[in-house]
Amino acid sequence: DFLNALHEIIPAFGASTDDLERCRLNGMVECGGRNKHIYERAMLLVEQVKVSKGSPLVTCLLEGPSGSGKSALAATVGIDSDFPYVKIVSAEAMIGLHESTKCAQIVKVFEDAYKSPLSIIILDDIERLLEYVAIGPRFSNLVSQTLMVLLKRLPAKGKKLLVIGTTSEVGFLDSVGICGAFSVTYHVPTLKTDDAKKVLTQLNVFDDDDIDVAAEALNDMPIKKLYMLIEMAAQGERGGDSEAIYSGKEKIKISHFYDCLQDIVRY
Amino acid sequence: DFLNALHEIIPAFGASTDDLERCRLNGMVECGGRNKHIYERAMLLVEQVKVSKGSPLVTCLLEGPSGSGKSALAATVGIDSDFPYVKIVSAEAMIGLHESTKCAQIVKVFEDAYKSPLSIIILDDIERLLEYVAIGPRFSNLVSQTLMVLLKRLPAKGKKLLVIGTTSEVGFLDSVGICGAFSVTYHVPTLKTDDAKKVLTQLNVFDDDDIDVAAEALNDMPIKKLYMLIEMAAQGERGGDSEAIYSGKEKIKISHFYDCLQDIVRY
Amino acid sequence: DFLNALHEIIPAFGASTDDLERCRLNGMVECGGRNKHIYERAMLLVEQVKVSKGSPLVTCLLEGPSGSGKSALAATVGIDSDFPYVKIVSAEAMIGLHESTKCAQIVKVFEDAYKSPLSIIILDDIERLLEYVAIGPRFSNLVSQTLMVLLKRLPAKGKKLLVIGTTSEVGFLDSVGICGAFSVTYHVPTLKTDDAKKVLTQLNVFDDDDIDVAAEALNDMPIKKLYMLIEMAAQGERGGDSEAIYSGKEKIKISHFYDCLQDIVRY
Amino acid sequence: DFLNALHEIIPAFGASTDDLERCRLNGMVECGGRNKHIYERAMLLVEQVKVSKGSPLVTCLLEGPSGSGKSALAATVGIDSDFPYVKIVSAEAMIGLHESTKCAQIVKVFEDAYKSPLSIIILDDIERLLEYVAIGPRFSNLVSQTLMVLLKRLPAKGKKLLVIGTTSEVGFLDSVGICGAFSVTYHVPTLKTDDAKKVLTQLNVFDDDDIDVAAEALNDMPIKKLYMLIEMAAQGERGGDSEAIYSGKEKIKISHFYDCLQDIVRY
Amino acid sequence: DFLNALHEIIPAFGASTDDLERCRLNGMVECGGRNKHIYERAMLLVEQVKVSKGSPLVTCLLEGPSGSGKSALAATVGIDSDFPYVKIVSAEAMIGLHESTKCAQIVKVFEDAYKSPLSIIILDDIERLLEYVAIGPRFSNLVSQTLMVLLKRLPAKGKKLLVIGTTSEVGFLDSVGICGAFSVTYHVPTLKTDDAKKVLTQLNVFDDDDIDVAAEALNDMPIKKLYMLIEMAAQGERGGDSEAIYSGKEKIKISHFYDCLQDIVRY
Amino acid sequence: DFLNALHEIIPAFGASTDDLERCRLNGMVECGGRNKHIYERAMLLVEQVKVSKGSPLVTCLLEGPSGSGKSALAATVGIDSDFPYVKIVSAEAMIGLHESTKCAQIVKVFEDAYKSPLSIIILDDIERLLEYVAIGPRFSNLVSQTLMVLLKRLPAKGKKLLVIGTTSEVGFLDSVGICGAFSVTYHVPTLKTDDAKKVLTQLNVFDDDDIDVAAEALNDMPIKKLYMLIEMAAQGERGGDSEAIYSGKEKIKISHFYDCLQDIVRY
Ligand SMILES: Nc1ncnc2c1ncn2[C@@H]1O[C@H](COP(=O)(O)OP(=O)(O)OP(=O)(O)O)[C@@H](O)[C@H]1O
Ligand SMILES: Nc1ncnc2c1ncn2[C@@H]1O[C@H](COP(=O)(O)OP(=O)(O)OP(=O)(O)O)[C@@H](O)[C@H]1O
Ligand SMILES: Nc1ncnc2c1ncn2[C@@H]1O[C@H](COP(=O)(O)OP(=O)(O)OP(=O)(O)O)[C@@H](O)[C@H]1O
Ligand SMILES: Nc1ncnc2c1ncn2[C@@H]1O[C@H](COP(=O)(O)OP(=O)(O)OP(=O)(O)O)[C@@H](O)[C@H]1O
Ligand SMILES: Nc1ncnc2c1ncn2[C@@H]1O[C@H](COP(=O)(O)OP(=O)(O)OP(=O)(O)O)[C@@H](O)[C@H]1O
Ligand SMILES: Nc1ncnc2c1ncn2[C@@H]1O[C@H](COP(=O)(O)OP(=O)(O)OP(=O)(O)O)[C@@H](O)[C@H]1O
Ligand SMILES: [Mg+2]
Ligand SMILES: [Mg+2]
Ligand SMILES: [Mg+2]
Ligand SMILES: [Mg+2]
Ligand SMILES: [Mg+2]
Ligand SMILES: [Mg+2]
Repeated sequence: DFLNALHEIIPAFGASTDDLERCRLNGMVECGGRNKHIYERAMLLVEQVKVSKGSPLVTCLLEGPSGSGKSALAATVGIDSDFPYVKIVSAEAMIGLHESTKCAQIVKVFEDAYKSPLSIIILDDIERLLEYVAIGPRFSNLVSQTLMVLLKRLPAKGKKLLVIGTTSEVGFLDSVGICGAFSVTYHVPTLKTDDAKKVLTQLNVFDDDDIDVAAEALNDMPIKKLYMLIEMAAQGERGGDSEAIYSGKEKIKISHFYDCLQDIVRY
Repeated sequence: DFLNALHEIIPAFGASTDDLERCRLNGMVECGGRNKHIYERAMLLVEQVKVSKGSPLVTCLLEGPSGSGKSALAATVGIDSDFPYVKIVSAEAMIGLHESTKCAQIVKVFEDAYKSPLSIIILDDIERLLEYVAIGPRFSNLVSQTLMVLLKRLPAKGKKLLVIGTTSEVGFLDSVGICGAFSVTYHVPTLKTDDAKKVLTQLNVFDDDDIDVAAEALNDMPIKKLYMLIEMAAQGERGGDSEAIYSGKEKIKISHFYDCLQDIVRY
Repeated sequence: DFLNALHEIIPAFGASTDDLERCRLNGMVECGGRNKHIYERAMLLVEQVKVSKGSPLVTCLLEGPSGSGKSALAATVGIDSDFPYVKIVSAEAMIGLHESTKCAQIVKVFEDAYKSPLSIIILDDIERLLEYVAIGPRFSNLVSQTLMVLLKRLPAKGKKLLVIGTTSEVGFLDSVGICGAFSVTYHVPTLKTDDAKKVLTQLNVFDDDDIDVAAEALNDMPIKKLYMLIEMAAQGERGGDSEAIYSGKEKIKISHFYDCLQDIVRY
Repeated sequence: DFLNALHEIIPAFGASTDDLERCRLNGMVECGGRNKHIYERAMLLVEQVKVSKGSPLVTCLLEGPSGSGKSALAATVGIDSDFPYVKIVSAEAMIGLHESTKCAQIVKVFEDAYKSPLSIIILDDIERLLEYVAIGPRFSNLVSQTLMVLLKRLPAKGKKLLVIGTTSEVGFLDSVGICGAFSVTYHVPTLKTDDAKKVLTQLNVFDDDDIDVAAEALNDMPIKKLYMLIEMAAQGERGGDSEAIYSGKEKIKISHFYDCLQDIVRY
Repeated sequence: DFLNALHEIIPAFGASTDDLERCRLNGMVECGGRNKHIYERAMLLVEQVKVSKGSPLVTCLLEGPSGSGKSALAATVGIDSDFPYVKIVSAEAMIGLHESTKCAQIVKVFEDAYKSPLSIIILDDIERLLEYVAIGPRFSNLVSQTLMVLLKRLPAKGKKLLVIGTTSEVGFLDSVGICGAFSVTYHVPTLKTDDAKKVLTQLNVFDDDDIDVAAEALNDMPIKKLYMLIEMAAQGERGGDSEAIYSGKEKIKISHFYDCLQDIVRY
Repeated sequence: DFLNALHEIIPAFGASTDDLERCRLNGMVECGGRNKHIYERAMLLVEQVKVSKGSPLVTCLLEGPSGSGKSALAATVGIDSDFPYVKIVSAEAMIGLHESTKCAQIVKVFEDAYKSPLSIIILDDIERLLEYVAIGPRFSNLVSQTLMVLLKRLPAKGKKLLVIGTTSEVGFLDSVGICGAFSVTYHVPTLKTDDAKKVLTQLNVFDDDDIDVAAEALNDMPIKKLYMLIEMAAQGERGGDSEAIYSGKEKIKISHFYDCLQDIVRY
């Protein structure tokens, strides 16, 4: 199943597993049926690329709200793919570079991939690669054009490539035409009450009595905010409680949890 | 007829047939009357250029939705033309170049063509050559002006040139005036149910009982998406089925086909 | 009369007659009263410049739809003027140049003209010299300012200059103020049914029975499109008919003519 | 009176009378009360600058439709001022220069002026100095800022300066704030029927019977267009009449005059 | 409590306490419950960063009207944190630098922080770092993108970082997406009547009879304006009274206080 | 009182009194209660800066219509302050400089000021320093950001600084946020009838009978226009009268005064 698969990681030769692992520092917990479904479909694309004769290039976009787990999911697929070349292209490694330098680096990653029989390239946070900002809107058209061409350019005979993109600005990507350049798109959602409950149960920081109301309060929250919130609440009102809570000796007070929730959702 | 013509390829001396062949990697199947009509008309233009005294320059635009087969069609006309100089101008070969360098390369292709008695130039994906993006909209006016002048400039006495453009953004080309610079324009459509059925029959991956509903579901789909969808569906729900299906031992399950269809048409 | 005048070409010493002749490769046929009128008026301006004491600079704009024959008309006036310096300024000779280089070349042409006692400068396709595109709109203000100053700057004592501009974007030229910088403006129209009939009669490619309906169908078409259409129709439905038709052995089938007309007017 | 004053030109030492004279190549004829009034008022400003203790800098703007005689008027004031330093700043002498070079040249003219006890600077066609174009609108803010500062900066003790600007885009100058930077503004109008009649009488090219209807037809025309029109009409319908007309042997046919008028006012 | 905590400053080794102290030149007085609450919550985040395993990066934004005390509060948290690396990033130290130089300096501060086990970075006046101006609006997208990436980039294993941002343009930050990049956001308000009274009592410059009406008049004023106003009023109507007032010998006349208030609130 | 104070100028050591004096070339006359009030308040700020412990930086903006006397007033405060460092920052001294050079010069002035115990900096015509133009609007954001930072940056311990800004575009300054960066703002108005009468009385160029109607006609006029108008009127209708009028032998004719008024207020 999904969780087991996540643990059967076989580090691929030549893949920069370190970069991929940084995308899921806290490990992966089971967080709902939708996420599982996307993982399975993405793994089918991995297989399709491997066996296909006709489509040497498959492209897949993961979109959804900020912090919903897109990068972690893409990294997991990359790790689990067992492909000899898996590379993540991220704005973090290109801060302050000129847009033409960024393009050159992106093109380089694709050309390296074309040399490997089986490759995965993760274009992480595409709106950040494009230096997108909603005011204007502004973005690098140079990077945008480069991606659009790369997403259509076929590798040489005998080479296969799967491109996975992630974004939390799918509307923007759509309006520049990058969205349509992907073959398939999956929506990675926030947690619903049920999903949140599953996660809270695994974390074991609430009284059994509180867990349902806590999960209810977390409905529609991205998994990233959930983790931040639990950490804040675990400090206690005056600080110093976290050790007792993580060790299981104490539980988070539900009233303090609500206080912290307000700090987080105000804006 | 159309299909036969496609196979009577006589590689022209000096033509870069490789580049042209890359535009139709999967070969060409018969996919409907409209496509056939356009092919025949384009071949008439080829002849007109060859025999005409008065019009040394003929220009023709193929426009239609993304993936509808425009580039494949243009490449086929180029290959079948039997002209000594056939060249495709594509953004793929000019990633990251400055717009003035792009212009220089395009001008070079035209000037080489002027030296050959009979030439075809394919301007593939003109919106991509222009680095067009709908937001703004933005595009390279330098490339745009260059194309507009080149589409009107007559070759020297005794030289003949056919220019074939392709685009999926005909509205944009129209508003910059490039559309009007072409003598004729043909619309390359998506597949209708009947066209899809023709293609599916040739692919032979469905039960005879399923082929009609499948074709119905594929109504109005570009041929590129059809191929992607069939490949996805051929994997089967759990992967591993594709060999059996392509070898004809098994058929695609229609329910799984619908599932895959949803992944593809969601956006 | 108009046609006769066209044939009384006396190549002027120093005039670049070659460039001018390229504007009317197919020769000139009589194509309607309006065109004749403009030719005569322009020739009066030529005379005015020659004899005038008070106005050393006269400027005249020919505007009208694309392909209506403006450049051919301007070139004809230049050739027939018998002036020692006749020069055409065209975007074709300045592809890809930076706007300041273009300006320098344009200024050079004017300064050369100031050295000749009698000069004509044709500013062909002014919107293309300005790199105009409707989106934005965008254009080179440097070229625009340069033209506006040059259209007002008087040559030195004893030198006379006639400037003839052509454009198919008179609305744009008007809004940047270039239109108002010309002393006179003439509208060069498309062909009306009568004009088309005159041209078809001279071409002699239709049955006498068909010529009227053909002319009717050509109402409001620019002469350039008419020539393209006749060439397409002359190929016949399956190609190969053109020789027979131009030699007069066969006539164009009116039904096939209508088919071709549809290809041309679709957009 | 006005006309007499115009002929009492005493060429000032150091003034570039040549440039000024080029602005009124045809000499000056009397053309209406409004023009005379502005001339007189401008000459009063000349005197005010000469005698004033308190206002070492006076600035005056002449605005009105294109061709209404603003530059000729400004030049006449400059010539008649008898000031040791009179300089015209015009776009004609700065074609194609970068805006910062233009600014430097303008500043230089002012700094030269500051060295003379009495100076006049004519800023001719300010919208052209600013490279103004209505689309956008676009213009050089560098030149605009430079002018606004120069129009307020006082010359050193004991130096006096009169600045005369001309423009046909007073609305634009107003919206950038240059208009308000001038102390006084005069509107130089087109000719009214009466003014036109005065000019026609002096030119003596019409029959006495025709002069009234001709003047009527010229109502609201700038003087520049009037001169162009008379030259066109003087050619006659078939050319060749101008000598007879200017020598007074023949008169312009009123019907031909109307024909020419239509060519000129169409746009 | 809040005020006591403020005085228990233990200068941290390596922290640039000088820069921090400049943000609260007048010392800190108690100014209302909301401010105290934010201080306490921010100190809890300091503790969370210190003890947390899962969240090596915590980000917190202080937003509120200009002069409401955000920078003073952030500096106080930095000083009180006892962290070895506390650094303030402020536009004051980067006047006139090119945006790419600014980015480089900001990145440097973050990379220095990554070397310390526990760090605080204060991004002071983020809209100023971004060179934001409401007209347009304009801002440096380079800085904006850099901040967005830095606010998500995790420090290496074992390093912890708290980022505190301040801004008075929260709407703008929201629309560029920087707001959403912070884990928590607190609103730092203006003084209410009660808060103002507390501050006035501590300053002791009013008669007991006047203090309530003065506090009422100061409702909804930022603390910075309050200090400015008191200084103005303390001069007296004719100047020279301030010494007597600060030494307690005299009190501010309430009528003069109202006069000064009007000067301050007119715009 | 106000006028006396104006004459008690004690030239401060190191202050560039020359630049300041150029702002009030005609000396200062009493021109109404509002102006006097602003002068007094500004002098109180001078004292506040001198004696204050808490506010080392005070900023004050003078805004009002063009020519209302803002620069003269600011210069007078600077001269009367008796501070060792008084400097005026004006666009006149920075014509044509690049915006970054301007910024560097402005920063230099502030850094020089930080070295003096007591300083005044006059930012004259801030919209001109910002190269503001209403169309767009356009302005230098580099200068704008620099000013906003400088208006908040505190001088080092023991140094005091008063910044006086002037502007006639307060709406613009408000919308870029510079207005809010000043502690206090005063509106410098045009002359009202009463104020105008006071000035006319001092000038003594009208008959006693005319002075009231003249003052009435001058209601709402900036003092700069009043001076210009009086100079024009003093020439007389035919010129040459000014000496007689200024020496008191003759008076300005009220009817001629009205004529001149019309020239001035037309726009
Ligand atoms: N299934 C999971 N189990 C445990 N932690 C997870 C899981 N999915 C995501 N996370 C954690 O949640 C946080 C947010 O996930 P991630 O960065 O993948 O989200 P994202 O959608 O890419 O966010 P953004 O839009 O900001 O890039 C990360 O710290 C990640 O490790
Ligand atoms: N008649 C055909 N038979 C078989 N395959 C075809 C046919 N036409 C097109 N294809 C295939 O379909 C895919 C899309 O075709 P093509 O690239 O020509 O479309 P397009 O209209 O140029 O798309 P785009 O707008 O994205 O450039 C290609 O893989 C091509 O090989
Ligand atoms: N009177 C004529 N007789 C024969 N051919 C003509 C005549 N006028 C124009 N043509 C031909 O028609 C074509 C179009 O003419 P031309 O290029 O002058 O049109 P245009 O108005 O300048 O077009 P554009 O707006 O595209 O520049 C040319 O090939 C020209 O040779
Ligand atoms: N009073 C006059 N008598 C004779 N000719 C005149 C007179 N005034 C102007 N002209 C002529 O009319 C023409 C137009 O005048 P001028 O160039 O001064 O107009 P303008 O208002 O400056 O035009 P523009 O707005 O185009 O700069 C010139 O050729 C000039 O010599
Ligand atoms: N609690 C306090 N006690 C005393 N003085 C304070 C207090 N808080 C702020 N101040 C003072 O008030 C002034 C304004 O505070 P501060 O600069 O922190 O405000 P800000 O919200 O950062 O303003 P801005 O939005 O302009 O950056 C400073 O001089 C500061 O020293
Ligand atoms: N009180 C006064 N007495 C005499 N002259 C004055 C007085 N105030 C101003 N002036 C004069 O009026 C003119 C305009 O004043 P000033 O330049 O100070 O106005 P301003 O408001 O700064 O104008 P702008 O907005 O154009 O900068 C100057 O010549 C100045 O010398
Ligand atoms: Mg992510
Ligand atoms: Mg294509
Ligand atoms: Mg043409
Ligand atoms: Mg002029
Ligand atoms: Mg602050
Ligand atoms: Mg001023």
